[in-house]
Amino acid sequence: MMRLGAMQDWPLRVMRLVDHAEREHGSREIVTAWADGSITRTSWGEVARDARRMAQALEAIGIKPGDRVATLAMNHAAHLTAWYGAIGMGGVLHTINPRLFDDQLVYIANHAEDRVLIYDRAFSPLVERLKPQWTTIERFICVEDEFADWIGAYAGNYVWHEGDERDPCGLCYTSGTTGNPKGVLYEHRSALLHALAEVAPDCFNLSARSVVMPIVPMFHANAWGIPWAAPLTGCKLVLSADYRPAQLSDLFRDEKVSHSAGVPTVWLGMIEHIERTGDGLADLQSVTIGGSAAPRAMVEWFRKRGVHVGHAWGMTETSPIGSMGAPPANWDDMTDEEQVDFICRQGRVPFGIEMRIVDEGGAVLPRDGKHSGDLQVRGPWVVRRYFKEDADAADSDNWFDTGDVAALHPDGTMQITDRSKDVIKSGGEWISSIELENAAVGFDGVAEAAAIGIAHPKWDERPLLVVVCRDGCTVDRDELRQFLSTQVAKWWLPDAIEFVDELPHTATGKLSKKTLRERFKDYRFAGAEAMVGRD
Amino acid sequence: MMRLGAMQDWPLRVMRLVDHAEREHGSREIVTAWADGSITRTSWGEVARDARRMAQALEAIGIKPGDRVATLAMNHAAHLTAWYGAIGMGGVLHTINPRLFDDQLVYIANHAEDRVLIYDRAFSPLVERLKPQWTTIERFICVEDEFADWIGAYAGNYVWHEGDERDPCGLCYTSGTTGNPKGVLYEHRSALLHALAEVAPDCFNLSARSVVMPIVPMFHANAWGIPWAAPLTGCKLVLSADYRPAQLSDLFRDEKVSHSAGVPTVWLGMIEHIERTGDGLADLQSVTIGGSAAPRAMVEWFRKRGVHVGHAWGMTETSPIGSMGAPPANWDDMTDEEQVDFICRQGRVPFGIEMRIVDEGGAVLPRDGKHSGDLQVRGPWVVRRYFKEDADAADSDNWFDTGDVAALHPDGTMQITDRSKDVIKSGGEWISSIELENAAVGFDGVAEAAAIGIAHPKWDERPLLVVVCRDGCTVDRDELRQFLSTQVAKWWLPDAIEFVDELPHTATGKLSKKTLRERFKDYRFAGAEAMVGRD
Repeated sequence: MMRLGAMQDWPLRVMRLVDHAEREHGSREIVTAWADGSITRTSWGEVARDARRMAQALEAIGIKPGDRVATLAMNHAAHLTAWYGAIGMGGVLHTINPRLFDDQLVYIANHAEDRVLIYDRAFSPLVERLKPQWTTIERFICVEDEFADWIGAYAGNYVWHEGDERDPCGLCYTSGTTGNPKGVLYEHRSALLHALAEVAPDCFNLSARSVVMPIVPMFHANAWGIPWAAPLTGCKLVLSADYRPAQLSDLFRDEKVSHSAGVPTVWLGMIEHIERTGDGLADLQSVTIGGSAAPRAMVEWFRKRGVHVGHAWGMTETSPIGSMGAPPANWDDMTDEEQVDFICRQGRVPFGIEMRIVDEGGAVLPRDGKHSGDLQVRGPWVVRRYFKEDADAADSDNWFDTGDVAALHPDGTMQITDRSKDVIKSGGEWISSIELENAAVGFDGVAEAAAIGIAHPKWDERPLLVVVCRDGCTVDRDELRQFLSTQVAKWWLPDAIEFVDELPHTATGKLSKKTLRERFKDYRFAGAEAMVGRD
Repeated sequence: MMRLGAMQDWPLRVMRLVDHAEREHGSREIVTAWADGSITRTSWGEVARDARRMAQALEAIGIKPGDRVATLAMNHAAHLTAWYGAIGMGGVLHTINPRLFDDQLVYIANHAEDRVLIYDRAFSPLVERLKPQWTTIERFICVEDEFADWIGAYAGNYVWHEGDERDPCGLCYTSGTTGNPKGVLYEHRSALLHALAEVAPDCFNLSARSVVMPIVPMFHANAWGIPWAAPLTGCKLVLSADYRPAQLSDLFRDEKVSHSAGVPTVWLGMIEHIERTGDGLADLQSVTIGGSAAPRAMVEWFRKRGVHVGHAWGMTETSPIGSMGAPPANWDDMTDEEQVDFICRQGRVPFGIEMRIVDEGGAVLPRDGKHSGDLQVRGPWVVRRYFKEDADAADSDNWFDTGDVAALHPDGTMQITDRSKDVIKSGGEWISSIELENAAVGFDGVAEAAAIGIAHPKWDERPLLVVVCRDGCTVDRDELRQFLSTQVAKWWLPDAIEFVDELPHTATGKLSKKTLRERFKDYRFAGAEAMVGRD
């Protein structure tokens, strides 16, 4: 169509977010509570300046637009600066999850072809251990030892690299259930549209007055997008490198946190702390809970204290917001129980996202709240193709299969009914049942193994490993556990191992997790408190 | 840059808004109060279906993507349907302001090459009068007489026309101070980004629970974007084809309106009505005031009643949101007077918009709250080039000169100091002083004339015409007024005409409106109530 007039060209680039915050909310604080309990303060203006310095520092060591710059870091202002600094010079920010086990950490850094790694001192042992196997990283920068000096050598008189809005800006690997981790390559445009959607009243409801503390790591699905949404509003950001409830509680009070977000495990810890110490929630108005389902009692606990609970669903592949709970039009006409029922579902799609459920044959199921099916999503911040893959992850109509099973209610709310089919969700992080099983069958005498999630009061789920021994063999529990600890991350180790004569299978010969879960539905771990901690 | 992975393609097309509302909020109501007081109800689902029918009806009469479809209508559900129907088949919606005078109405419809005109029966006399001069309109459809039957002949089994997100979707002419009206050609992308920005807590703060009644016409800068923002949230929309305070007051109460928006003149009428009748504001939470400056007393009146006042600034060329008032981070630390001072300014830019003030030489002035300069803006929903113009309206850096004079405060708030240099703002509509002057000098015996706005208790400003007679001539006030009434719209007629010996001029010989305004700063109209009404 011939252009007879025009609105302005304005590429959707994420650096516009920090430009806006610097210009309009330059003195608004970014507070960091470090692992040692110390507090430092900076501002949107200083973060923008430091990001420009870092962009210069990256250029000085030969980093080019499109190159991957990795971080292995908890939540703090230097990490935030690193996000904007890496992207500001045209780089692709690769946030690495330090909780992955070594093979994965080696695989993803090499697969991403990371050229720089910025890491917290706490992860030095990990870095020293894996350095020999990382084949592409040229420059290692420790946050505490080097970062400030490294960027401080530059003036910050830098103009952000410009480019197409479909250029990549971020990379995050998802440790799926099968095969190697897959990288989701976020784009400037997708991140910016996600941020615009996230601040809306029916999503995170963020304004310039908000004081936001994400209690979700920045390496975990972009800390749910908060580091992009925050500068859009000019809110105050509170970052804690440590998730001990006592430290978080101090921050809620001292920094007057109004909005927070985290997985149920984080909130269980907070609630236990508050109940025990008598600490309060101070100015907290709203919590977003995601990662796994919030227990009903948790929803009610917050409601009693006047705190709005938004139950969210999403994944690395959805940037991550797929759905979000917010009171519907008829909220005031609902009974208290109906309101809690509503909150306990996983919310509704924000504008931009579409959801549907399909049966095994791919037929679309009705939104009647009764049918459950494979949950599929599409939208501008949903993955189309994983990094370096040859085929699209979504079908030709952009429907992406989430691996979760859900029901859609007539009011548009989504409810995860089987959460995910195989994955074990522990403290908001995923444990791959298949990886566990593969490791177990590598042990002498194990014929077959199945890992399933068992409900756990603190971690939501913990793995139970069910083992079938080879004919005539016996397997020693402790020896198997010892062997597994050389194969997977410590926090992936099953809380219990049970031996059975045979495992259930489907007609096509596949292991039937569903039947197995039913068989163990009343199973309880003997010593839940004695399990291996994750932090 | 080679694409090594991808997020999904998702063109920013406005039809996705009504798709979302139909899918996720299909039963949410759209209420219309007609001029005769009758109420009709429809829903987002029905509006979407009717828009599909209209798209088919337009195709059936040969309308093609890119063709202009005009409306001459007040706010009601059929107008809303017409917006989405025209755009849904790829057309460009041209909203015509029926308050323009005949020459302008003829000019813009011919310039736009409108092929269809959908009009309210109330505008039949206007349509009949101008029909012979409209050279491109092939099909006239009266809302009350024909619209339902016209679209009702089609099933609505239609798939929206797809295209590029930079395709035009709307056209709105602005009657500037000089020359012919200019058309702003909105694009799908600009309208969608504007809608995303508008719903944010620091902008209109709209959610699925909101009940929104715009008291600003849909032909006036897109009713401030509300018909795009509303379906994004799934809010209830209340449209009134008539602005009599009694009818509006009934709607506030009966429909539980939570959010409204209008020019100060509308609110003055509402306040007068409420003070006189004892009616209340019912569930009203938030009003947006724009078009011209809200008087301080009005801000205080709403505040006393617990209603949030957002003071907005914008223009047809900015879609229209340029800035919007919302409480800043330090709101709770402000005194009552400081809060009112803050509200009385024109707010801050939403993410996307940049503002600056420049002196006469184009040098950028500081944001110190002291300097005033020409206000310039840029952003993704700001005009770059007017419809069919050969040159850009913005400079090479996209800065668009607004014609307003403003100060920018250190906290980012913008304050219009001279409102606009020449234009007279009456009831939120603009009266061109230059058009009035040009008309006046066409009258025998008038040597020179200047029109300036004089403060008016109801209309904010009304025109005073200051005339210098030719040597030796005398001019009769009533004859001049009679002549002017054949040249300009009735509501543009000056409330008073004063004769002087000479007018002040600048060094370069230009009429100095500034000096003239100072000379008449204490001027009051003798019979303000006797002036010609606009409605």
